[in-house]
Amino acid sequence: MAELTEFQFIDRLLQQQAQQDQPFFAQPHSLGIGDDAAVLPPHPAGEQLVVSTDMLVEGQHYWPTVDPTALGHKVLAVNLSDLAAMGAKPLAFTLSAGLAQIDTTWLQAFLKGLFGLSRRYGCALVGGDTVRVPAGSPQVFSVCIWGSVPIGQALLRGGLQPGDDLWVSGHLGDPAYAVSQHRSDLKLDWPEPRVELGQALMGVAHAAIDISDGLAAEVAHLVKASVQASSISLTATLNWQAIPLGPSLHQAIAAGHLSDQAARIYAANGGDDYELCFSAPQAKRAEIESIAQRLSCPVTRVGQVSGAHPATTAHSVCWRDHHGPLAPDLVQQISSRGYDHFKASS
Amino acid sequence: MAELTEFQFIDRLLQQQAQQDQPFFAQPHSLGIGDDAAVLPPHPAGEQLVVSTDMLVEGQHYWPTVDPTALGHKVLAVNLSDLAAMGAKPLAFTLSAGLAQIDTTWLQAFLKGLFGLSRRYGCALVGGDTVRVPAGSPQVFSVCIWGSVPIGQALLRGGLQPGDDLWVSGHLGDPAYAVSQHRSDLKLDWPEPRVELGQALMGVAHAAIDISDGLAAEVAHLVKASVQASSISLTATLNWQAIPLGPSLHQAIAAGHLSDQAARIYAANGGDDYELCFSAPQAKRAEIESIAQRLSCPVTRVGQVSGAHPATTAHSVCWRDHHGPLAPDLVQQISSRGYDHFKASS
Repeated sequence: MAELTEFQFIDRLLQQQAQQDQPFFAQPHSLGIGDDAAVLPPHPAGEQLVVSTDMLVEGQHYWPTVDPTALGHKVLAVNLSDLAAMGAKPLAFTLSAGLAQIDTTWLQAFLKGLFGLSRRYGCALVGGDTVRVPAGSPQVFSVCIWGSVPIGQALLRGGLQPGDDLWVSGHLGDPAYAVSQHRSDLKLDWPEPRVELGQALMGVAHAAIDISDGLAAEVAHLVKASVQASSISLTATLNWQAIPLGPSLHQAIAAGHLSDQAARIYAANGGDDYELCFSAPQAKRAEIESIAQRLSCPVTRVGQVSGAHPATTAHSVCWRDHHGPLAPDLVQQISSRGYDHFKASS
Repeated sequence: MAELTEFQFIDRLLQQQAQQDQPFFAQPHSLGIGDDAAVLPPHPAGEQLVVSTDMLVEGQHYWPTVDPTALGHKVLAVNLSDLAAMGAKPLAFTLSAGLAQIDTTWLQAFLKGLFGLSRRYGCALVGGDTVRVPAGSPQVFSVCIWGSVPIGQALLRGGLQPGDDLWVSGHLGDPAYAVSQHRSDLKLDWPEPRVELGQALMGVAHAAIDISDGLAAEVAHLVKASVQASSISLTATLNWQAIPLGPSLHQAIAAGHLSDQAARIYAANGGDDYELCFSAPQAKRAEIESIAQRLSCPVTRVGQVSGAHPATTAHSVCWRDHHGPLAPDLVQQISSRGYDHFKASS
């Protein structure tokens, strides 16, 4: 047999690791990495698939100096977060990597992070492609992931209803603040996709989205999709004081590095949070609190949905605090920034 | 509404094009691009999914000067070719793109090629991600594709049986020759995935693989996978004179630019052919010829499979012509080159 090239080494490593970790392909009539395509176990009746894909580019979505184990985790985590927002149970994923050179120590650390997370959710690596990019080009990772939901039960963006509460999981803003400071941050490097919460919210929440580009932008997506779906006018009113700030932001306020308002702008309009934002009827408040407690996943009510002007299909997001609507220049700051990942700072 | 960024423009373009072209999401309980994940129509009972992924990098897998419409076609074609090798019916795909800048004319041409092919097979675009790579970095495209097969019927690599004929579809070598000449070539730029042939071979062929890295390498993959699957020793004997050469190679021989032997090396050990290599019992010869005629897809018998030394699990590929085994130095050239796509010439 011919000597292994570096890229064959990777393929073999991936294959071994996948076989070792995954009971997925122990099921009959299925086949993992190594043929022209993987053959997935037949899908259970009454279930359907949801599919998502995300690409991460060095310097755009992570720093070249990132801990490779954290990066392996994050590459999968951001995709699992999309499944979480659909209420889906993770099933399997593919990974394509464009690499300029092979550092096997780096790669093994990367795979440790990747497979550590995939094993936790029984989400099998079922295919991959490793290609070379020219020296000096950024690394690129592309994951395609799919999960399973009972037919017709997926949590969609377009399900907001008048009277719903708006909730967020966890806390917001620490990752965006860390990026602005060029610092690493636990939540930035090791995002925890809210997979269990998403599944538990099925049949409870009316709509859900994951927060990758900032709360303000994601709520606008929810409202727009819901107006399109229902053809009634909807307004989401968010409570400025209710946004749950991350511990780094609290510390920065306490140390006098940030004003309360500056910290809240990070939380309202940052990014890379990978929390869920969801809506549910007020009658579900106790149930949601109970789910959150069971999963040790804090949730916070941050606003309400109202319907108005049923003859039009306007959609809007309003911000208020206990004094009333926020000042227009602050709303402008919250709404217009648009989180651009690592671009400003890389 | 905020002004569209260039990347939002792309996302919108993709979304519109996908909606326009695809009846896929007209099915109940399904949802296309625009949510956190696509929701696929429930899968028919008795079918299972196969999944594959391929990444293409500018300068490695195509030249920067390539016709964008051809590139859009090729990005999907190489993935459809993997499904063809499994005998699968194409269902859907995701596309991730890393782009340094947005040239909308270029992009629309790319999408024309992409959707032209996807529409032909009813293969829906169900998700995507568009990210920016730094100026000067190569473009990257990553496709994940899936198709459907009757449960347990997928054509695998590991199905060779002693006595089988080895076949290839179409003709080989023109793309590799074009790359070596730094020329464009119809088959290099517009590969035709053998999707219909793959499906027609289900229940007829014992094993199949698509030829992306050269016939010699692919036959070695077939033999190795089959020995692993059956635990008997297998030898594939390929007939040097039987390899179907492409028209460019025939012309180059006629014009005295290539010796017959040099042309056959391109065909045996080139790459980017995207033809199928498959094995089938001798009793199926007439049926295979009839399928080929019906599909207007020429097929050629290029070798045989034999079993030997059942106590061991050796696997080997032999080359012969009408005089007997090929000379060792020629076999060395065929087997060791290893097609490295555009690396040598880019």
